[in-house]
Amino acid sequence: MSRAAIQSASQTELPVVRTVADLRGHVRSMRRRGESVALVPTMGALHDGHLALIRHARSRCTHVIASVFVNPKQFDRPDDLAAYPRDEASDRAQLAANGCDLLFAPGVEQMYPDTFSTSVHVGQVTEPLEGAHRPGHFAGVATVVTKLLLQSLPDVAAFGEKDYQQLITVQRLVRDLDIPVEIDGVTTVREADGLALSSRNRQLSAEARVRAAELYAVLRDSAAALATGEGASSTILAKGRARLGHAGFEAIDYLDLRAAEDLAPLTHVDRPARLLAAAWLDGVRLIDNLPVVPDAG
Amino acid sequence: MSRAAIQSASQTELPVVRTVADLRGHVRSMRRRGESVALVPTMGALHDGHLALIRHARSRCTHVIASVFVNPKQFDRPDDLAAYPRDEASDRAQLAANGCDLLFAPGVEQMYPDTFSTSVHVGQVTEPLEGAHRPGHFAGVATVVTKLLLQSLPDVAAFGEKDYQQLITVQRLVRDLDIPVEIDGVTTVREADGLALSSRNRQLSAEARVRAAELYAVLRDSAAALATGEGASSTILAKGRARLGHAGFEAIDYLDLRAAEDLAPLTHVDRPARLLAAAWLDGVRLIDNLPVVPDAG
Repeated sequence: MSRAAIQSASQTELPVVRTVADLRGHVRSMRRRGESVALVPTMGALHDGHLALIRHARSRCTHVIASVFVNPKQFDRPDDLAAYPRDEASDRAQLAANGCDLLFAPGVEQMYPDTFSTSVHVGQVTEPLEGAHRPGHFAGVATVVTKLLLQSLPDVAAFGEKDYQQLITVQRLVRDLDIPVEIDGVTTVREADGLALSSRNRQLSAEARVRAAELYAVLRDSAAALATGEGASSTILAKGRARLGHAGFEAIDYLDLRAAEDLAPLTHVDRPARLLAAAWLDGVRLIDNLPVVPDAG
Repeated sequence: MSRAAIQSASQTELPVVRTVADLRGHVRSMRRRGESVALVPTMGALHDGHLALIRHARSRCTHVIASVFVNPKQFDRPDDLAAYPRDEASDRAQLAANGCDLLFAPGVEQMYPDTFSTSVHVGQVTEPLEGAHRPGHFAGVATVVTKLLLQSLPDVAAFGEKDYQQLITVQRLVRDLDIPVEIDGVTTVREADGLALSSRNRQLSAEARVRAAELYAVLRDSAAALATGEGASSTILAKGRARLGHAGFEAIDYLDLRAAEDLAPLTHVDRPARLLAAAWLDGVRLIDNLPVVPDAG
């Protein structure tokens, strides 16, 4: 979006609410007008990946609410929380320009008052991958997503496939707790060289930014090799990890083949699968994933 | 309620639904007629304590739904779960006779499908007392209550003060997760000799049933002594425990003075307080509690 477009959008003055009571007041008037409501939960620092969620939500419902809340409970490292980018003015302008109707931007004390003491835990799908590397992360995600969904009670909520394990964790918790909402996954938006958009990309040096695209290339090539069903998956994945090392990634948390539905470990692509990776480059932790669809025949 | 009343009530045929989809269908038509909805969650084996909840719900909303579900997740002992009384025909008749409009009686597979893996944990208020003696109990309660509330989305839900720690746990989780419902506590219903009504009372022998009233007498006398502010609370409580032993209680899990709001330990009644007890008689675990209000002056 051009600077002029941002300025014109911010002149439309996207309404912002900061309390649950005000949010509910807005939702009530939407409901009274018979409108359907979609929610897009974000942590701000919006980029085109988020805006794709907004546009998807727009296609599903007559009214779109975005939330911006940097949730301390889902950060396992204080330095990561402190470094997480925040820019509400830019977020607000981009949301308005992409068809969002309301921004919910609560403070920490609104979400977690002093005596707050409840948490939501999803088992099984949260255990491997991010769950193994970021203790407490998914309990933080599950708790805040439960709250955001119950604060707004939308018809639909949209989450990016970029955080694939988060997406299926949210789908599982919504089913298990009977939250009356549809959870839509939205395809990852990528740069021209394939790097998945992420608020963390801006923490990369210019030189590391160039090398970062290798994460996507490794996922793409490994997924294609796995899809053929030829060669051991362990060999294909070992080659992928070695290639990331050569590209300058300092550490690889995982490069793993999993069942798409429940993240069970897979050695053969005998059902819908997902290839997922997390790796460190230039002190920044990048994650990405791709579907693996068995070749026909 | 007389046998004749039960029979006449059962002739009115209280509607029963067993799936969340059917429950939601009923709630939707109530909402379309502009009715307000109250939920009374129970584990069945209904007695007048439950019926007081139904009558309270009736006074608050135009429509009352009762749920009957013996929740396996809140039992810490398999023998306790197996022995828990079940009598749907009697429950249904009593509900109809007391102004309930709909019974939701799901099976275990409806509430917890095979891959169910989510749980809700409330900290702080769940840690002492029942939480210390029944591992996992309150996570089971918090999870099933969250589900029941989100399945029906009532305006009000009623819980008995008999399970006081459960009541404040539910109030805490509803506030923390932003579930849009009011939680009402309803005063404990007692037999003529003071014994709190409980589905477990019917497991007592006739002789133990007589002695069981001493639990209430000890709570009443100890609460009165604590309210005066004279004498050490530890002495008063030790005397109460000794009296339960003399009455034939085999074991006392606790007889404790706690802050009414958050169950923090108290030695002086310097704010609204609650005296809570759990003790074993004739192999049956009985619990009860009373408010402790400081004497004026």
